[in-house]
Amino acid sequence: MTATIAAGHTILDPGQVLDTPVMVVDEGILHQNIAEMQGFANSVGVNLRPHIKTHKSPQIARLQLQAGAVGITCAKLGEAEVMAREAGVQDILIAYPIVGQPKIERLLSLMDQVHMTVAVDTLDAATALSNAVVRAGRTLDLYLEVNTGQDRAGQRAGEEALALGKAIAALPGVRIVGVMTHEGHAGASEPDLIADKAKAAGLALVETADLLRRAGVPVTTVSVGSTPSSPFTPTIPGVTEMRPGTYVFNDNTGFRHGRMGPDRCAARIAATVVSRPSPDRAIIDAGSKALAMDPSPSHPGHGFIIGHPDATIARISEEHGVVLLPTEDEPGFSVGDRVEVIPNHICPTINLTDELFIVRDGKVIDRWPVSARGKVR
Amino acid sequence: MTATIAAGHTILDPGQVLDTPVMVVDEGILHQNIAEMQGFANSVGVNLRPHIKTHKSPQIARLQLQAGAVGITCAKLGEAEVMAREAGVQDILIAYPIVGQPKIERLLSLMDQVHMTVAVDTLDAATALSNAVVRAGRTLDLYLEVNTGQDRAGQRAGEEALALGKAIAALPGVRIVGVMTHEGHAGASEPDLIADKAKAAGLALVETADLLRRAGVPVTTVSVGSTPSSPFTPTIPGVTEMRPGTYVFNDNTGFRHGRMGPDRCAARIAATVVSRPSPDRAIIDAGSKALAMDPSPSHPGHGFIIGHPDATIARISEEHGVVLLPTEDEPGFSVGDRVEVIPNHICPTINLTDELFIVRDGKVIDRWPVSARGKVR
Repeated sequence: MTATIAAGHTILDPGQVLDTPVMVVDEGILHQNIAEMQGFANSVGVNLRPHIKTHKSPQIARLQLQAGAVGITCAKLGEAEVMAREAGVQDILIAYPIVGQPKIERLLSLMDQVHMTVAVDTLDAATALSNAVVRAGRTLDLYLEVNTGQDRAGQRAGEEALALGKAIAALPGVRIVGVMTHEGHAGASEPDLIADKAKAAGLALVETADLLRRAGVPVTTVSVGSTPSSPFTPTIPGVTEMRPGTYVFNDNTGFRHGRMGPDRCAARIAATVVSRPSPDRAIIDAGSKALAMDPSPSHPGHGFIIGHPDATIARISEEHGVVLLPTEDEPGFSVGDRVEVIPNHICPTINLTDELFIVRDGKVIDRWPVSARGKVR
Repeated sequence: MTATIAAGHTILDPGQVLDTPVMVVDEGILHQNIAEMQGFANSVGVNLRPHIKTHKSPQIARLQLQAGAVGITCAKLGEAEVMAREAGVQDILIAYPIVGQPKIERLLSLMDQVHMTVAVDTLDAATALSNAVVRAGRTLDLYLEVNTGQDRAGQRAGEEALALGKAIAALPGVRIVGVMTHEGHAGASEPDLIADKAKAAGLALVETADLLRRAGVPVTTVSVGSTPSSPFTPTIPGVTEMRPGTYVFNDNTGFRHGRMGPDRCAARIAATVVSRPSPDRAIIDAGSKALAMDPSPSHPGHGFIIGHPDATIARISEEHGVVLLPTEDEPGFSVGDRVEVIPNHICPTINLTDELFIVRDGKVIDRWPVSARGKVR
């Protein structure tokens, strides 16, 4: 695929001195990405509830809400606690099972502050939630998580999900207000299969919602996920909500979907060449502690170096990126030179950094804390 | 290899309630690992200068120094700044090139507080350091980094390293006091090749030190790295220092070296079963945000589940671990059950957590901050 990918443009002025490695975010590309996805959601008539796992930044959550998002999606309570406190978010979905007494207590506390909805995919978890909210004299909204092919969490679409949904609907204190799926398997497919797999997943979810309604469970929200499938699932009649995350920044994995090149990637690791042990090999100061270890399906190696589509970050250890150069005279790889790298998968990369350095017109103009970084609980 | 690995024992009492996922560290195993490596260094007459990248914890650095370590090794200045400030360390090696004005200024500031030594492997980096320390009226100690087969950083052992060493020795303000290598390629080899590769690397380093001495460069320290090769390289005549890191905790990768099983692994991720979507599949709340994405050469999947050597963490996404169970009636995988997972590679896993929960006799007795977490600069 490399031959079809543009070389891209750096976002930092060469004269901007920065200690590296550092995550830099171009404000213009960020705003463009947010506006475009919101415009798409509006145009197809679905609500946008972005997953904040990609940015973990209260500032960016606020930009998404200002653009028209109906609320946000979080994976963990710790992320929701940060976003409720620091971004003033009023409507939060935890797209993840809540299991265990410590988490149930934190959920009840969050319910005092914001409207919470929680994903559920087992009767065990739903029963524990039911018991807790009844004791607290509260009512909790649930999304039934449905497996539409990813085979991660969720009961299988159709009869299995219906049976669980009916059992949960009989519990006191909780109400199933929606169904959700994460059709991540579509995005992980070969590019020419994504559309078909995404549509099949979306249709299976809509049909499951219909089964539940016919059984008397008043499902109103039908919620789909993921940036790679975002052109396909939200347009299915009956889908009412989308939860993409990656689109705010985009990444190297996204190249494969053919909808963007490097210049739509807002977040890059600025790194420095720290050694040039041989003519064909340069060492940059971004390894797995800056770039994460996730592979890319679209480009060999551990990231895409802006301006050098044929250079490969062939190996990374924690602090070293070993770059194999296409020719010995490839410019820009002397000791001290700076490169910008688009990570393979932006979400885990953001989880490695405490701050985003915000760039406007080539200059760093602000630093935003990644306040929800590391909130695994 | 799984058949030869013991099932291991959990370190947490079943009754100890904990919000998960969380990194728990058994104090007893930690102390045993620190004492044993120090005892080995003493027995073979080399200095132990542990790499703190594994733990990033001032408390654990103090334990290593109290046991007899001569100082510590850091990868980055940010780690050294934390350790100088919070662990009172007086002697620090940065086993990484220092490149760029922001880092040189931070190095000069650290030199006011503690004895610093810095790795160097290019004349460019050495010249910039020389210019800076001369301007500051200081002298800086250097280790020449030598490539003994890993092909990451470092000039190749022998004539290439000699030529660079002589050129650097001619610079004012800096002095080469040692040579170092990271023989990581040995540890990454098949188990029956580790010893031979490690010894070859160590011998090449000793010979390079001799070449430098004959050329008038007064090398005193000959420093080798890495836990996997630690039984082999420090015993080579002429080696004076060892820099292992992983031994404080050990990990799933270490199983392959045959020196330990799960019960010598001090650090585990305690995780909860949050879903059981099908009889052969359980979901735990530890994904790549808790376990990191590094593969293991010794065991399939993304970590070793204590007590369940035949269960496989087959896939991880950020918050989900998809466990394939050997039989549908495998005990311990109901929703709400807790498991302990030994990560494949402990170092990046520690970099994902803000705190270590210290366990004594099954109970959490303390929480230690991972103060040097995320210090990529």
